[in-house]
Amino acid sequence: MKEFELIQTYFSGRGPQRKDVVLGVGDDAALTKMPQDMLLVVATDTMVENTHFFKDACPRSIGHRCMAVNLSDFAAMGAEPAWASIALTLPSVDEEWVKEFTEGLFEIAEYYNVQIIGGDTTQGPLAVSVSLKGFVAEGKALLRSGAKAGDWLFVTGQLGDSALAVEAKLGKESISEDALKKVQQRFDYPAARIAAGHVLRHAATSALDVSDGLVQDLGHILKASGVSAEIDVDKVPVSPVVVEAVGEERALELALMGGEDYELLFTVPEEQKGYLELNATAMGINYTCIGQIKGGDSGVSLRRKGKPYVLSNNKGFQHFSE
Amino acid sequence: MKEFELIQTYFSGRGPQRKDVVLGVGDDAALTKMPQDMLLVVATDTMVENTHFFKDACPRSIGHRCMAVNLSDFAAMGAEPAWASIALTLPSVDEEWVKEFTEGLFEIAEYYNVQIIGGDTTQGPLAVSVSLKGFVAEGKALLRSGAKAGDWLFVTGQLGDSALAVEAKLGKESISEDALKKVQQRFDYPAARIAAGHVLRHAATSALDVSDGLVQDLGHILKASGVSAEIDVDKVPVSPVVVEAVGEERALELALMGGEDYELLFTVPEEQKGYLELNATAMGINYTCIGQIKGGDSGVSLRRKGKPYVLSNNKGFQHFSE
Repeated sequence: MKEFELIQTYFSGRGPQRKDVVLGVGDDAALTKMPQDMLLVVATDTMVENTHFFKDACPRSIGHRCMAVNLSDFAAMGAEPAWASIALTLPSVDEEWVKEFTEGLFEIAEYYNVQIIGGDTTQGPLAVSVSLKGFVAEGKALLRSGAKAGDWLFVTGQLGDSALAVEAKLGKESISEDALKKVQQRFDYPAARIAAGHVLRHAATSALDVSDGLVQDLGHILKASGVSAEIDVDKVPVSPVVVEAVGEERALELALMGGEDYELLFTVPEEQKGYLELNATAMGINYTCIGQIKGGDSGVSLRRKGKPYVLSNNKGFQHFSE
Repeated sequence: MKEFELIQTYFSGRGPQRKDVVLGVGDDAALTKMPQDMLLVVATDTMVENTHFFKDACPRSIGHRCMAVNLSDFAAMGAEPAWASIALTLPSVDEEWVKEFTEGLFEIAEYYNVQIIGGDTTQGPLAVSVSLKGFVAEGKALLRSGAKAGDWLFVTGQLGDSALAVEAKLGKESISEDALKKVQQRFDYPAARIAAGHVLRHAATSALDVSDGLVQDLGHILKASGVSAEIDVDKVPVSPVVVEAVGEERALELALMGGEDYELLFTVPEEQKGYLELNATAMGINYTCIGQIKGGDSGVSLRRKGKPYVLSNNKGFQHFSE
């Protein structure tokens, strides 16, 4: 099967067919109609075998994740996803692989109403790069740079599952089959917090998604905003599966330093806490206040049971090949 | 040097800083302002080592080509390029390589006023995927599907250089050092026919860029438009460098079947020939009429010295690894 045939069979005409797509897959470029007075939002993320997924990774999961990580960037901006281009590089044309990959890809694309408008399939070492396009109203995008001293620091969902999945896979943690199944599912099929991002657009002063680890990613907000932060470690929403599998201490470490959970980390001023509570709760969004933004440039301070807390390994998450 | 540092040093703040970019490199996604009543245009092309460039390829050329091939898609649509995302995968952080690569990249980005608004650097086998964004007025994009029986068939520039460079590199042709230098330069630094695309927007009924070979790419126009075509082989603008290096017959073969020249192939109705002549000539655009569109679905017929002509190897260009 040649490139043209492959595209024809597994990509053309699949997934949502949006009314704002004037020309999709099949010409030199795609054409889409932008809604008036909106800014174009663009995110690009690449996944490479042995760096972002293991050699034996399920193609369906790769299809899901390559889209999910970009959707997560959109969630962190409070933006509306619309169209994606997929650059897929394959060692050989393995039809079964492409079939499963596109199943994972189109399932999540369908859920978030994203149309695949183009891309490129090439021969080479396994990798996939997604460039996601969409929109956000002017002045409404959530940046990393808006955090102010006094703002409260929040995170959605629970942390630590994906990091434990990676540690287990690397043989650094030995856990029960049941626990492995649960954390692996979280690693393979991360959710993108698009709905949370929409609520935060009207409540948060800054936001990003936790891909490299809570402490490390918080550093980006602090640097961009010129502030510091204090995390109350006891409040961090550690995944109960991880606590049960490796104990409270190690679980806390994984929750603070582990990446790939794709939860949103965000700051909300005192006067917007009510709005957040009302709207996030109404939409069934789980979130936890884990600390507060402070002035100065002293970075992240951790406190546990009222005392300063120091992490044994303060290096952040560097993906699993590094 | 880590990913953040690499981006900081060689990508941030370089190249054109467009006024329509609200947020560039450095947050979860980029934000840009679309001009009113224009459609968004998106092209994506990936280049992988050993498939699209040789192992010892000059990084400067890779930087140029990864942008040029996308610009060429824009030229073929008559579109205005504006913003690009770069997904760069590197086996290791080789600073010298990145320095040269970005020199090639930003040189062509500067020329066409394209701002790099984001991307991703990852570890893995050498590859680069560019997603280029820009705009075109509604109803003005040049599609592959508009060719009509009776339209004249044109191609810009000259053909055959890049294919000869590949053949020489693979040891299939032995040519003089001087000729090799010339054709290699064409392969390494292809031009994108953006200016020609702008003129064609008002003159052509269909267009695409010749990346896989004249005959093969013409097939895409014919299929999309539901027509056939006749090429007068004697009129095909074969590169004189190629004729001198390998003789007239082989040169013709390379010009008809060889890819990577990134010239525009387009169709113009009789009544627009005057407009084309006037405007293309005024702008110094070289182009040649090489045949005519016919009805039916008999594909591409070649004629030479008034008689039907059959190519010995009618397989098109499949990139050099295949």
